[in-house]
Amino acid sequence: MRVNGARLLADLHALREFGAAGVGKGVVRPAYSEADMAARAWIAQQMRDAGLRVEVDAMGNLFGLAEGPSVLVGSHSDSQPEGGWLDGALGVIAGLEVARAARDGGGPAVSVVSFQDEEGRFGVTTGSAVWSGHLSQEAADKLRDHSGVALGDARKVVPVTGQIDPARFTGFIEMHIEQGPVLDTSGERIGVVSDIVGIRDMKITFEGQQNHAGTTPMSLRRDAFQAVSAFNHALEERFANVVTPSTVWTIGHLSLHPNASSIVPGRAVFSMQWRDGDSDRLNRMEQIIRSVAQETAQARGMALSFGEMLGLEPVAMDAGLRGALEQSAQKHVPGAWRLMPSGALHDATNVSRLMSVAMLFVPSIDGISHAFEEDTAEADLVMGVQVLADAVATLGARSS
Amino acid sequence: MRVNGARLLADLHALREFGAAGVGKGVVRPAYSEADMAARAWIAQQMRDAGLRVEVDAMGNLFGLAEGPSVLVGSHSDSQPEGGWLDGALGVIAGLEVARAARDGGGPAVSVVSFQDEEGRFGVTTGSAVWSGHLSQEAADKLRDHSGVALGDARKVVPVTGQIDPARFTGFIEMHIEQGPVLDTSGERIGVVSDIVGIRDMKITFEGQQNHAGTTPMSLRRDAFQAVSAFNHALEERFANVVTPSTVWTIGHLSLHPNASSIVPGRAVFSMQWRDGDSDRLNRMEQIIRSVAQETAQARGMALSFGEMLGLEPVAMDAGLRGALEQSAQKHVPGAWRLMPSGALHDATNVSRLMSVAMLFVPSIDGISHAFEEDTAEADLVMGVQVLADAVATLGARSS
Repeated sequence: MRVNGARLLADLHALREFGAAGVGKGVVRPAYSEADMAARAWIAQQMRDAGLRVEVDAMGNLFGLAEGPSVLVGSHSDSQPEGGWLDGALGVIAGLEVARAARDGGGPAVSVVSFQDEEGRFGVTTGSAVWSGHLSQEAADKLRDHSGVALGDARKVVPVTGQIDPARFTGFIEMHIEQGPVLDTSGERIGVVSDIVGIRDMKITFEGQQNHAGTTPMSLRRDAFQAVSAFNHALEERFANVVTPSTVWTIGHLSLHPNASSIVPGRAVFSMQWRDGDSDRLNRMEQIIRSVAQETAQARGMALSFGEMLGLEPVAMDAGLRGALEQSAQKHVPGAWRLMPSGALHDATNVSRLMSVAMLFVPSIDGISHAFEEDTAEADLVMGVQVLADAVATLGARSS
Repeated sequence: MRVNGARLLADLHALREFGAAGVGKGVVRPAYSEADMAARAWIAQQMRDAGLRVEVDAMGNLFGLAEGPSVLVGSHSDSQPEGGWLDGALGVIAGLEVARAARDGGGPAVSVVSFQDEEGRFGVTTGSAVWSGHLSQEAADKLRDHSGVALGDARKVVPVTGQIDPARFTGFIEMHIEQGPVLDTSGERIGVVSDIVGIRDMKITFEGQQNHAGTTPMSLRRDAFQAVSAFNHALEERFANVVTPSTVWTIGHLSLHPNASSIVPGRAVFSMQWRDGDSDRLNRMEQIIRSVAQETAQARGMALSFGEMLGLEPVAMDAGLRGALEQSAQKHVPGAWRLMPSGALHDATNVSRLMSVAMLFVPSIDGISHAFEEDTAEADLVMGVQVLADAVATLGARSS
């Protein structure tokens, strides 16, 4: 089963024309926009040309269905407000090319999907969330975008054909750009995903005493910024024996009050987010975060409060599907691929509620995504789809 | 020379009625407001009743002049947008009471002043800045408040009589609430000011790499918040051998970009402010700040930039005036007073360009000022004015 690299790249460039914007190969194609709906009509035609039956559900998730049981391959074709040409689009066109290669080369039955609103104009991966039953259509319809438009109104442009029964699929494979710098830095060409990491996200507030920055001696201050800095410093030391090189944690948001150079900050509200593939580790990190925050507050005379914790559990990739991707990677790029977690969320997280899932990554140049500058070497794109196609061929051989 | 405590307190309460607002003894009396101008008319009448000749300059600085050479005692009677009843007002009424006590008790000639716009509706200590020649009237007139009103228009309500020649004054003494917690914490009742500290204030920017908080491993991040935290931590250690217990430094403003929990911050802009009574120490601290910032930037792959540095030099109090205050404090509250720097700016900073200056502090309950809750025990108010009066009496005895 050989993929046609020229056809693959031509389709990626053709799809990029819908919403082409910004520098480089930038794209502006948010969910349900004119560009998005035109792109989906074009994708539907490519599906038909590949011999697939097109179905669209109420959310606008677009399926190209093979006859009988089939493996589902795809991702999403909506983009960030300022996005690149590959994020999501690559996985959809890869599915299309693998379906064509399977048809041309006598491979197994392959269906293709482009989920809707993965980039979260209305929420987070809303299209696959509704399809998987994680979010009801009624609840989804009430979600509003930043300008106040309700999803229920936005989706009126969808040419609905009916709901698609997940039972017809034997598994789901999503190809994606890495969106991080690991493969680009190491020079490896393929990442086989071990798991999609779990996330914990919690607001923390230190409340001390707002004071005059000239008349308050250091020894009498209860400075909320100093508390955050001390907490952050202590946390790094306490995490050392718990984390792995894949674990990440971030203070990305910080708001000081009153935030003026002549006033000792009386209050600091900040975000603490941490991600890992192992639920136990996420929980141990939570205990450390709470302990260190409490110790810091106590040592510095601060009031401390924790906000509600957002938690998403890690999703392990299916051993069989993952094994097929690993073998294919080892065949095509021996020694130049790695098993790695996905630090970002993907539609596969939702789909894992319905069936076995797996993912593979190709490198992101300089680790950039969600930006016009996002790109991947063409040779890496073609190699990634070839690895995917051969993994699918193996699965077909097994199940037949 | 005995002050009349009941008369002093009655006058403070009477003055508070102009602009009385908020909780406790709160006051809203910004420069040139109706309440401020009415308060100044009332103060002018008290000056006349004390046998002083009232003069008002073009800025609205209000003087009650004794015959011949005299010591000038006072402060300001405008308030913060949300201020207390003592900040500034105390120094003016104290001057009035000392002038009356001197007249009643055969003391030296004492003139009284209430400077205009010390609280900076239009700038910083603008009334005394213009009187001292530090700021021209033309430049001052172009300053605008937060609602866009020019000082040149606001001061049209001033009943100008003419300019007041500083040469008639033998020195200036300003009594003020401490505006900090030192005396309240130690239980001491008087602070004799050694110097008004100098200030350095500089914006610092660390520019790293904005990244996805899920897909970017810790080892590949260039996180601008982490740079600020590391800088802050290293600074404390490096300052240890340079600072004194009176030195202060503050990171009061911090702005992260893009300031979102799921994004590694690419840029951090923050304020670094430090204050000390010694210019050399301020300069040594600046060198350390620049070095530590450069080392932090280098170690973490950050671009670094420094904003323009705001600098105000320390002002030492006059040895003679200060000595008189120290002797008077030791007589009235032996062992319960201290020599201390003023961490806040005052009109005395500007007046020091014209003549010898000195200041004394009374305790601020819980160190609070620039708030409705600002207060000082009545016994401390009376004691402070008595210490001031006896110091003035000593000066009169010397010069006569």
